[in-house]
Amino acid sequence: MTGQLSLSGETRVFVVIGDPIAQVKSPGAMTEAMIALGRNCVLVPMHVAAADFGRFMAGAAVARNLDGIIATVPHKFAAYAQCATATERAHFLRSANILRRNNDGSWHGDMSDGEGFVGGMRAAGCTPAGRRALLVGAGGAGSAIALSLLEAGVVELAVHDLDAARRDALLARLKERRGAAGIGPGSDDPSGYTLVANATPTGMRPDDPTPVRVDRLSPEMFVGEVITAPVVTPLLVAARRLGCPTQTGGGMYDAQLELMRDFLLGG
Amino acid sequence: MTGQLSLSGETRVFVVIGDPIAQVKSPGAMTEAMIALGRNCVLVPMHVAAADFGRFMAGAAVARNLDGIIATVPHKFAAYAQCATATERAHFLRSANILRRNNDGSWHGDMSDGEGFVGGMRAAGCTPAGRRALLVGAGGAGSAIALSLLEAGVVELAVHDLDAARRDALLARLKERRGAAGIGPGSDDPSGYTLVANATPTGMRPDDPTPVRVDRLSPEMFVGEVITAPVVTPLLVAARRLGCPTQTGGGMYDAQLELMRDFLLGG
Repeated sequence: MTGQLSLSGETRVFVVIGDPIAQVKSPGAMTEAMIALGRNCVLVPMHVAAADFGRFMAGAAVARNLDGIIATVPHKFAAYAQCATATERAHFLRSANILRRNNDGSWHGDMSDGEGFVGGMRAAGCTPAGRRALLVGAGGAGSAIALSLLEAGVVELAVHDLDAARRDALLARLKERRGAAGIGPGSDDPSGYTLVANATPTGMRPDDPTPVRVDRLSPEMFVGEVITAPVVTPLLVAARRLGCPTQTGGGMYDAQLELMRDFLLGG
Repeated sequence: MTGQLSLSGETRVFVVIGDPIAQVKSPGAMTEAMIALGRNCVLVPMHVAAADFGRFMAGAAVARNLDGIIATVPHKFAAYAQCATATERAHFLRSANILRRNNDGSWHGDMSDGEGFVGGMRAAGCTPAGRRALLVGAGGAGSAIALSLLEAGVVELAVHDLDAARRDALLARLKERRGAAGIGPGSDDPSGYTLVANATPTGMRPDDPTPVRVDRLSPEMFVGEVITAPVVTPLLVAARRLGCPTQTGGGMYDAQLELMRDFLLGG
C-alpha cells in the first residue's frame, strides 16, 4: 500500500499474524480499504511462531484499541480456539482467519477463505453452480473451499488428498451436513470435472509435481489455486496454455478483502 | 502524521503504550521520522491499562517484527522493570520510556525525558549551564529532568514537591551521584532562579493552581513545562506575558524525537 494515512493516538489497530509474515499483502491492502471508508485504522504485520500464538493472543487481549485480527498460516485453527463466539461456518471448519471483538472484549471469529475462492471465481465471470468440482487438499483452506463450493451449488464435489484419513474425515463431515449426493473421493486425474481447485502447497517449490495431472486438463475447466507465491503456479501455467479460465491465490485473497474488512469493522 | 507510508508484510513494527493513549503524537511523528530515514517502519498506539502492562509485554515479547516500544504514562517504571539491560541513566532513574531489542530478543531501555527538556531548551537558544534551576515535581519526569539539568551544568538545583519524602529521596540520590553542592529543597517561590521547570500535572485542569507563584516570575527566567494539554499552561501564559523564554511540554517531546528514533532503530 502506498497511500494517505493519518496515524495518531486515536488510530484503531488491527494486526495480521503469521509465520512467515513477509509475504502478506493485507497491511497495505486492508489499511487502504479501511481508509477508503474514512476510518482512522491501520493493519500491521505480527510475526509470531505457532508455539507462541497463545502467549501473543493473551497480550493482544488487553490492548483496548486493538480491534481485530487476521490469522494466516499456521494460526487459523489456533485462532478459532481463541474465539468465544464464531460464525456457523467457522464452527463447522473449526478454523478462523478473521477475528473481531465482542462487546466484552472477547473474540468473534469467521473463516472467509472459501468465500474468497468462490467470490473470486464469480468476479472472473465464472459461476460455480452446476459444476463438477475436483478439490485437491482437505486441510484448512481446502475444507473452507469445499464448504463454499457446496453452498454455491456445485453438483459434484470430489476431494483428493494424499492423506486418505484426512480426506475421509472431511467427506464424512460434509456428507453429514449436506447429504451424501455428489460428494466423494477424487484422484489426481481431472478428467470429466469442470472446476479444479488446488488447496495444497504443492506448486510453491520449483521442483514440486503438479497437484493434478495437467495432461488431463481441458479448456472448459475453471482452474483455481490457493498458492500466492509464485503468483502463477505451474498448474495455472498449464491451464492458461489450454485457455482455461483461472484464478491465482492472490485473486482469491483480493476477492475476500471487502468481506474481511466489513467483518473486522463490525459486520 | 500525514505522509507517504508503504505498509507491507516486511514492515518493522513499533508501539507506543499508554493509558490514556488518544493524546499521543508519536504514531504520526515517529513513523514520519523513521520513514525520513528510508526505513520500512510504523509506530502504532496501544491502549493498555497499568494492571495489564505485564500481560501485554509478555505477548509483545514473542512478536518477532516488533522491534521497539515507547512507554508513556503510567508505564515508565514498569517498562524499566521489563528491561534486561538499560542505559546508566535509566538505571539511576529506575524508569524507561524507550525500549529496543537486544540480540537475544530481550529489552534494552533508556529514559529520554530529561534530555528532551534540555534539548528543547538548547533548540530555543537557551543554555542550561550556569543557571540556577527550580524544579517542581520529583516524580518520574521530574527525576529525569533533574539529572539532565545537573549533567547540563546548572549551578544550583532546587527541588520542590508537596511530597517531602519523595523530594528528599530524590535529593539524596542526586547528591550521592553528583555531590551535595548546589542541590537542595526549593519552594513554590521562583525568586532568584533563572530556570523554572514544572514536572507535575498541575496546570492540566482549568481550576488548577499554578505550580509556582507566578507573581514572583521575572523576564530573565527560562520557564519550561512537561504538560502537553493544554499546549500553553497558565504558568506559561504568565511567563510569556513577562517576556520569559518558555518551552511547552510539546516542545520537550519534539526535542527528543530524533534521540528516541535513533535509539529505537538501534542506537
